[in-house]
Amino acid sequence: MKSEKISDAVVRRLPVYLRFLNELSLREVPTVSSQELGQKLDLNPAQIRKDLAYFGDFGRKGIGYDVSYLIEKIRQILNLDQQINVALVGAGNLGQALSNYNAYLKDNMKIVAVFDAAPSKIGTKINNITVQPIDELVETVQAMNIRIGIITVPDFEAQRVADQLVAAGIGAILNFAPTILKVPSEVRIHAADFTTDLLSLAYYLNDGKELTSNES
Amino acid sequence: MKSEKISDAVVRRLPVYLRFLNELSLREVPTVSSQELGQKLDLNPAQIRKDLAYFGDFGRKGIGYDVSYLIEKIRQILNLDQQINVALVGAGNLGQALSNYNAYLKDNMKIVAVFDAAPSKIGTKINNITVQPIDELVETVQAMNIRIGIITVPDFEAQRVADQLVAAGIGAILNFAPTILKVPSEVRIHAADFTTDLLSLAYYLNDGKELTSNES
Repeated sequence: MKSEKISDAVVRRLPVYLRFLNELSLREVPTVSSQELGQKLDLNPAQIRKDLAYFGDFGRKGIGYDVSYLIEKIRQILNLDQQINVALVGAGNLGQALSNYNAYLKDNMKIVAVFDAAPSKIGTKINNITVQPIDELVETVQAMNIRIGIITVPDFEAQRVADQLVAAGIGAILNFAPTILKVPSEVRIHAADFTTDLLSLAYYLNDGKELTSNES
Repeated sequence: MKSEKISDAVVRRLPVYLRFLNELSLREVPTVSSQELGQKLDLNPAQIRKDLAYFGDFGRKGIGYDVSYLIEKIRQILNLDQQINVALVGAGNLGQALSNYNAYLKDNMKIVAVFDAAPSKIGTKINNITVQPIDELVETVQAMNIRIGIITVPDFEAQRVADQLVAAGIGAILNFAPTILKVPSEVRIHAADFTTDLLSLAYYLNDGKELTSNES
């Protein structure tokens, strides 16, 4: 399995596993089965076993997974065995809301810098972090070893911010602006555009009408 | 293909296609090829052709897709040929930020009601919508024919809100609270938990260290 490419869907489930495992760890639960994981997370246990098997032979038949060991392995897989510093660009309502989630991130990931273009925002504090002008982005990202950027600026400013994050040497971007950004292939970008999420949900609204395809 | 189950990944790409097609339509571009779509959206053209073929034979060789026709078909597929009313529960920073996206939703989807538990919030306005007490949720959802609920309350309140949305007969929920909610199988729920997104991005940070699996 060494060089097998792991799908993004699998990678995205790992933090979900990690969060629940952390809960179990707090409650001092020593082991957990794929059935228990599946029931709690609404996933097929076979899917969970398959996901975790990509990374190694973690489970033991009849016992399940050792919670502490699995936490340690998933952290390693996700590069969370080191502290990952995050920059937030855009100190509007969304940026402020996201910075409140810092408490949930734990696991060695932390928003450590916030940037905004508006003079009225610069110098104010968001969750104890002083908002800096965007002009200082490149220098600060490099000085603080920031690896991930979150973009919460309006869509027409988003590409310029992305370019600056890339110039600063960032490795990954989470983009909340409802626009498609171009970045070099070595930079990983995820779109966290909730409008897409919301519109896709409408598909599942069933008025008892049968969805037929290939109609003509 | 009539009864073939369409994967959630495909469904989630449809609004992305729709947004770009709407842009093309505004610019009065009559047709678009899967190559152009792929380049703009950073997707494989073959993937795009495959996605759209689930729903019918939309493209014509050498010409591409008729923009207006494709918009109409995707809207139908997504149930957006009717107005879909949305309720937002939680009028904090995140709720306020999301309500600002109303302008981007277009496509017959609209946040029409906002609820909060805090007396200080009730009666205030968010984007011209008066915040109502959560007690009024069930009645308002039914009276306004609201089909989708967005949960932006703190995690410890989220399950109670989800239960009320379900009781009101909602069809789908977008959950921003960082917790797993239980809803009946006929209600579609998507987790829009950005911490999961963010933690999964760390996987793609490559320090030149080779990720090996099955080490022992």
